[in-house]
This record gives sequence, structure tokens and C-alpha cells, in this order.
Amino acid sequence: MNMPMIRYILNWILRLQAGLFLLVSLVSVIYHEDIIWYYLGTALACIVLSFLISPRKPQNTVFYLKEGCVATSLSWILMSIMGALPLWLSKEFPSFTDSVFEIVSGLTTTGASVCQNVEALSKTTIFWRSLSHWVGGMGVLVFILAIVPMGGGSHFNLMRAESPGPSVGKLVPKIRQTARILYVIYFGLTVLECILLLFGDMSFFESLNTSLATAGTGGFGFRNSSMADFNAYTQWVITIFMFLFGVNFNFFYFLLLRQFKKSFAMEEVRCYALLALSAITVISLDLWKHTTNLFSNASEIVRHSSFQVATVMTTTGFATTDFDLWPQFSRSVLVLLMFIGACAGSTGGGMKVSRYLIVLKTVRKELNSYIHPKSVKKITFDEKPIDHDVVRSVNVFFITYIVIFVTSVLLVSIEGKSLTTNFTAVAATLNNIGPGLDLVGPTRNYADFTIFSKFILMFDMLAGRLELFPLLILFHPTIWKDSVHQAHVRRRNRRLDAAKEKNNSN
Amino acid sequence: MNMPMIRYILNWILRLQAGLFLLVSLVSVIYHEDIIWYYLGTALACIVLSFLISPRKPQNTVFYLKEGCVATSLSWILMSIMGALPLWLSKEFPSFTDSVFEIVSGLTTTGASVCQNVEALSKTTIFWRSLSHWVGGMGVLVFILAIVPMGGGSHFNLMRAESPGPSVGKLVPKIRQTARILYVIYFGLTVLECILLLFGDMSFFESLNTSLATAGTGGFGFRNSSMADFNAYTQWVITIFMFLFGVNFNFFYFLLLRQFKKSFAMEEVRCYALLALSAITVISLDLWKHTTNLFSNASEIVRHSSFQVATVMTTTGFATTDFDLWPQFSRSVLVLLMFIGACAGSTGGGMKVSRYLIVLKTVRKELNSYIHPKSVKKITFDEKPIDHDVVRSVNVFFITYIVIFVTSVLLVSIEGKSLTTNFTAVAATLNNIGPGLDLVGPTRNYADFTIFSKFILMFDMLAGRLELFPLLILFHPTIWKDSVHQAHVRRRNRRLDAAKEKNNSN
Repeated sequence: MNMPMIRYILNWILRLQAGLFLLVSLVSVIYHEDIIWYYLGTALACIVLSFLISPRKPQNTVFYLKEGCVATSLSWILMSIMGALPLWLSKEFPSFTDSVFEIVSGLTTTGASVCQNVEALSKTTIFWRSLSHWVGGMGVLVFILAIVPMGGGSHFNLMRAESPGPSVGKLVPKIRQTARILYVIYFGLTVLECILLLFGDMSFFESLNTSLATAGTGGFGFRNSSMADFNAYTQWVITIFMFLFGVNFNFFYFLLLRQFKKSFAMEEVRCYALLALSAITVISLDLWKHTTNLFSNASEIVRHSSFQVATVMTTTGFATTDFDLWPQFSRSVLVLLMFIGACAGSTGGGMKVSRYLIVLKTVRKELNSYIHPKSVKKITFDEKPIDHDVVRSVNVFFITYIVIFVTSVLLVSIEGKSLTTNFTAVAATLNNIGPGLDLVGPTRNYADFTIFSKFILMFDMLAGRLELFPLLILFHPTIWKDSVHQAHVRRRNRRLDAAKEKNNSN
Repeated sequence: MNMPMIRYILNWILRLQAGLFLLVSLVSVIYHEDIIWYYLGTALACIVLSFLISPRKPQNTVFYLKEGCVATSLSWILMSIMGALPLWLSKEFPSFTDSVFEIVSGLTTTGASVCQNVEALSKTTIFWRSLSHWVGGMGVLVFILAIVPMGGGSHFNLMRAESPGPSVGKLVPKIRQTARILYVIYFGLTVLECILLLFGDMSFFESLNTSLATAGTGGFGFRNSSMADFNAYTQWVITIFMFLFGVNFNFFYFLLLRQFKKSFAMEEVRCYALLALSAITVISLDLWKHTTNLFSNASEIVRHSSFQVATVMTTTGFATTDFDLWPQFSRSVLVLLMFIGACAGSTGGGMKVSRYLIVLKTVRKELNSYIHPKSVKKITFDEKPIDHDVVRSVNVFFITYIVIFVTSVLLVSIEGKSLTTNFTAVAATLNNIGPGLDLVGPTRNYADFTIFSKFILMFDMLAGRLELFPLLILFHPTIWKDSVHQAHVRRRNRRLDAAKEKNNSN
């Protein structure tokens, strides 16, 4: 493994973290909050650490997929720990575990909070939570790719490890260019939402935080009631932008290039829209039929069901109403949507619509093989045949996902909460949504879990965001065995060289 | 499609059903129950129908996999309907839906009952319920294969459609011989259990019913308290035989041939035993720690946890205690076991241990491919490399299973029961277990569901028993289009022939 290169990437992560903290400190300055010293102190610590880790670029920049995975996982873990320090040191959060949980939840755009009273937090911390969504949404390494020059192969393997979806789409041949285009679209949409929100009943600070969290499909709010207190206009703007940030970004790229036909032909986007509309329709009908006391009229029902479908499907996690009180069928539909998630290549989490499309196509193919055993038709996506390897890895992803899901539910259940709580807590963290049902419903939080369960849920959030394998690979014995072995070989070579030189000089 | 051959098989199914009813009628004779007339009447109806369907063996016995699947699914549906008639006609069950539900549950060895008071049923019906477990456990078509001579390929394709597990193991080259050996082992073990139970506190009738239900890993009881009132000896005998009937029958075959080494080297059996022992241990510890009022001593805890692990893992469905009252962790472990199930090639249901082994090996392989992208190692099972096709179809099975599971939970949730109820009801029927948690817990039953939900659950039971694809194929449009098309071609050919003859005679 190319450890110097991994160290080089981690060093950039630390610099990025320091930069983010400086940005966050501006909020402290504006609101005159003393917490600024904790943020500036940690920023300094990041800079010092970055120089200790790796002062300069390594000569050998060759980088394989496994190194991309390890670098990605370590980057995310490092950012979570450094990002949690100010929260812990300033005693805004009761323990180190809780602080890390909050930042893991922020960076992975989950939005599951352990904070019992969000309104008591400092503005600075609220901004840092929202910003962590924004940075984590598109990916920290994608950001670094966009600004730091690296060797050829490295780009692709880093991007592949961090990007959501079954296969990485390069918009343009150069990965670096692709990363930049993505960030430009991302930034543009965020600014647009912020401006539109200002026309509603939000202050600038509130609009900014909401747009950052929506863009990353995060879900940290700044009021204990999440988005329930804002007016219909604001809620509709958020709903629409949640849906937009759940769309594959290629869609917007094609739109920018005025290739409208190509945009609207995208199989995944069409399926995503269809699913969302169907879910809104059935939930509205269910609410219309079964709840007489929750809502006063039809437009309110449609607004709330659209908002909740958007929040769950794009895995954002805001709420305008306590959907844990909804009838069982609507709740089941929401739980189902939790597992589907948004489009690949968006900032949303979950298993992604395209994976389901591929998976359903494999099932159809298998069924066909019972009828025409000799058929060798390939599975197609967007009218192009997809690689056998992609199909296999999607199937394996699905299975690994289930394995992690079941194991987590089992481990979390040790502390004895209800099945619905455990099931939806794991679903909400593994899919990076935020709120679940019962004890982790939209009006509750994750503070009650034991430290053990919190670590399981943190693992789930990271596994969900990094799409399982990059994180799992850290637990593969050969990864570390190889490094230890290589270090040993290097030491031996050095010793031999030294011995040779000594011999020569004699 | 070879419709005459399918009709020929259905005709045999009807004869088998008539034979079973005659056997059941013996119980009526012994206990002087008037219900005998309903059973004899239906037996007569079966005979008449069998002659109407197909009086003689077709000339063309060629039989492909799709025909095997269609024949199997139709056989099971036909047996369920005919088997339900006496229950409905005699008014022992309130409606036709309930009667069919009960027999589908019996034949698929689920053991989920809609009967609120089992003790009020006639002895004849109790015996028919238990017998349906026994017949369904090993498979009705396997039975017919063992007695009816058919064309070469037919055997294998029928066996493949009905047998549980990822691939069909032929014990001996001839399928017919294999079917016979299986039934001999099955019969032998059932008799052995019945004799051992007689030494406990069960009457002969009770022992017989219990052994039939255990052998098929069914779960219909004859007391409202299931097996809770019997003594420790009886409960242990049942526990051990439940585990035995969950073992791959190849294991016993090798034992009979004195190939002990081959027996105990079977990867699946070892894994099954390990899983069972681990589950018993953790549940015992959890019960020991958390429940002070349920059990009086350690031996009782071990007995009840062993019994419940056996009943859930082998998907039998008896109960000695209301495990819905157990602590959350134990309940979660039981729910997890529901999804694992027993060994392939046993009478147990669920997804089967071997499928999990293969699936976990694919995950490991995928993880390895991140580290060694060029590696082409094949997945092995019992130290033999397994076919790429088997791996793929196991993965697809897993996914299809999840899709059916989720859809069913969603549809059942329309009627508004709790998430735990819906989730475990579908889990318990799709895995052919019987009791779930909450409203379908061990002390409750399925009577409360609406007709719609009952049909969903019936579908799940059949899909679970026939391992998804044979049943799903019935819904594939081309299956019926082909038949319609063929019938059309046949009619046209006949017309052309007639026209030709007419021309010739002119």
C-alpha cells in the first residue's frame, strides 16, 4: 500500500478541516460568541497535525482501488474526530461519544441528533452542523480532487471510493474537471435555494443553514420543531429543493448543456419521479381517509405528505409534522422509501433507485431463464447493456447491506428498546436519513442510546455514506498485513543498503 | 408447454389427495365422528375430477423446467383447494378463505392457524392437519415421483421445482430411487419419534400427530397451549427431533451408508449446528440475566430456549412458552433465526443455511476483489468449486425474497396493524414458521386478518415453500401466451388437416 500517498491525502483533509473552522469562526465573530476560541484552537491543531503527518507530496503517486478505499475511510474518520473536538471541548455536548456522533451524523448527511435542545446551541455550532452536511453531501475527497493536483489514476480511485451509486459516471474525460463541474452545480443550487427562502418567513441565517442542510440532504435543524413552524411557501421551497438534490447530478449537467432530451430520458430520474409521485398520492389518500383530526384541508395533506416523502426518499430528515402519528400504511410506505433512497450521483443516501432498477432487472432475467434456459440477453440500463461486473457488484452490495443491517439491529437490540425503534434507528442511520419511528421518531432524538449502540449507529452512518465496501475493507486483515510486511521489507532493504555501503567503504 | 403431461400430473395429485382422505377417514371410524362423510365425499369428488382431467398417460413425456414449475405450483394450489373442502363443508371453519388458509398453512408446513380454539376441532380434522404437514414436508411431487413411472427428464425438473435449497442433490443417479430413499429415511425417523414420545406423557393419538407435524417441520398442535403442558422429557424429545428434521437428509443417507466422515464434514450441517448452539447459549444467558419471574431454574431456561430456537430455526412453529414476553434481545435473535431457517434438503423452510454460506462467500469474494482486482478464485462449497450459475441464482433468490417480503409487509400493513405484527406475520409465513410476535405471537392466531391480507399471507406461504420462482412463474405472461398460442397453432393445424383431407377426398 502506498502509505505516503494516503498520508498526503490525510494532510489535505486536515487543512480542509482547518479552513472550514475558519469559515465557521466568522459566525462567532458576527454573533460575538466566545466559542470561537475552541474552533480556532482546533483549527490550529489541525494545521500542526497536517505538518506532522506529511510535509510534502510523495514521488510515487500510483494509487489502486484499495488505497482509494482506505484513504477515503480514514479521511472520514479523521474529519469526524477533528470536527467533534470543539463540540466536546466547549462542553456543548455532554460527552466525546455524543460529539463524534453528532459530527458523523453531520458529515454523512444523516441528521440524526443526540441534542435534546437544539435551540440552546450556539449559532456557531449550528452553522458548523449545517456546513458539515454541505461538505459531506458532495464528498470531502471530491472537493479535494477539485483543488489539489494528483497523479492520474488516483483521481478515479478516490472518486470511485467516495461517490454514491453502482458505477462512477465521468461527465468529462478528466476527473478533476468532473469534480469541479459537480461542485459548481451544487453551489449554484444551494445559493438559489437560499435566495428563494429569503422571500419566505426565514431570517438570512436560517435560510443559509436550511439550504446547506437541504443541499447535502442532511437534516440538522435549528429549531426543536424542525420545519413545522414555517409557512407553506417555505415548506414547499424546501420540498422542491429536497427532491432536486436527490436527482442524479448528470441530469443538471445535461440541462446546462441544453441536452434536454438526454436529461429526461434518464431511466433512473424517471423512475425516481414516478416513485415520489406515487408515494405522495397513496399517502395523501391514506391520510385523507384515516385522519380527521391531524389536518384541516386537502392542500395541507398534500403539502405534508409531499414534504415527508421528500425528506425520507432523499434521506434529508427534516420534518413538518410527527409522521409517527400517521396511520400504519403511510408509515410503512415511508419505511419502504427509507430503503430505496435517492438517485445515484446525487447527495442523497439510501440504496439508490438505480440499484433497485438493476436488481429488479436481474430478477426478471432469472425468471426468464426458467422459461428460456439458453437465453443470454444482457441487462440494459439507459438502453446501454451494463457490464456483468456491475450487475454482480450491485447484487453483492444488496446482500452486504442486508447483512450489515441485520447485524446492527441485533446488536442495538441488546439494550432492550422496542423492535420498531431498533429497526427504524438502524434504517435511518444506514440510509443516512435521520429520524425513524417510535423512540427515534421525528420529535425524538438519539440521546437515549448506550455508548455501545451509538458506536454501532455511527458505523452504520459511515458505512451507508461510503457505500459499505470502502469502510468494510478497513477490517480486512490483509490490508494491514500488507502494510506491515512492506514496512518490514523497506526496513530490511535499508539495512542491506547500509551494510552494502559499509562494505563498499571498507 | 406440454399441457397433457401437466394434466397427467394433476390427475395423480387428485388420486393422492383421495388416498389421503381415505386414510384420514380411518380416524373418523375409530372415534365415531360424523365428519367422515365430508371427507369421503371430497375423496369421491377428487376421483371423479381426476378422470375428467386426464384418463391416461400422454405419449409425449418431455418436460422442461418451466413445465416442472407450472406443474408444481398448480399441484400445490389444487391440493390446497381440495384439501380445504371438508373443513369448509363441515362448517368446522367459518369461511372458505379460512379453510384454504389452514390447509395452505398445513401443506407448506407453516403451521399458522386461523383456528381460535383447536381443542374444539374433530379428531379427524386434527389428524388431517398433521398429515398435511407430513405430506407437504417432503413434497407431494417427490412422493408421486417415488411411485409413478414417468419420462426421464421429467423427474429431475419436477424435483428441482419442488425441492428446497439452492441446488438439487441426487443421492443416487436415478431420481426415482433418490425420492424413495428420502421417503424411507423420513418415514423411519417419524416412526422413531412417535415411539419415543409414547414413553412420555402423550397418548398414541397425540404422539402420532406430534411426530407427523415435527417431521414436516409444520407446527399445528392439538392443544391451545401448543406443547407447554407436556413434561420435560416430551419437550426434549420434540426439540431433538425438530433439529434432526432440519438437517440435510444427505447427512442421514451418508450415515446409513456408514460414511461417517462424509456426514460430519458437511459444511452446511456444521454451520447449522454451530448456529443453533450459539443461539441457545446467548438466549439462555439473556433470559438468565433479565427474567426473574418467567422460569424457576437454569435447566428450565435451557430447555425452553433450546425448544424455541429449534422451533424457529427449523421453522416448525410449536411453542412451550410465550416468547413474545421474552426480553428484546432474545426476541431479535429469534426473528433473525426466522430468516435463516434450516438446511437445504431438509423439510425445514426459511432461506436455508447453505444459501447464507454461499452469500457470505460472495461478499467475501467481492471484498477481496477490491484488494486483488485480478483474482479469479471460484467460490467453494464442501471443498468443491460451485458453479457460477448457482452463485448467481442464490444472489437473485436472496433479492427476490426481499422484494416479496417488503411488498407483502406493505400490502398487509394497509389494514393498520402494528409494524411488529405485519413484519413478523410475513416473516413467519414466507419462512413457513407459523407464529410471529405481537398479534401473531405464539399464543395468538391469524384469524383477525382481513381476507385480502390472508390471501397475501397464503401467497407468501406457497412462495416460501416452493422457493419463489416456481410460483412467480405462474405470473409470467409468456407462460400462458405460449399455451394459448400453441393451442391456436394446434387448432389451425387441425383445420388445415381437415381442409386437406376434404380436398383429397374431392
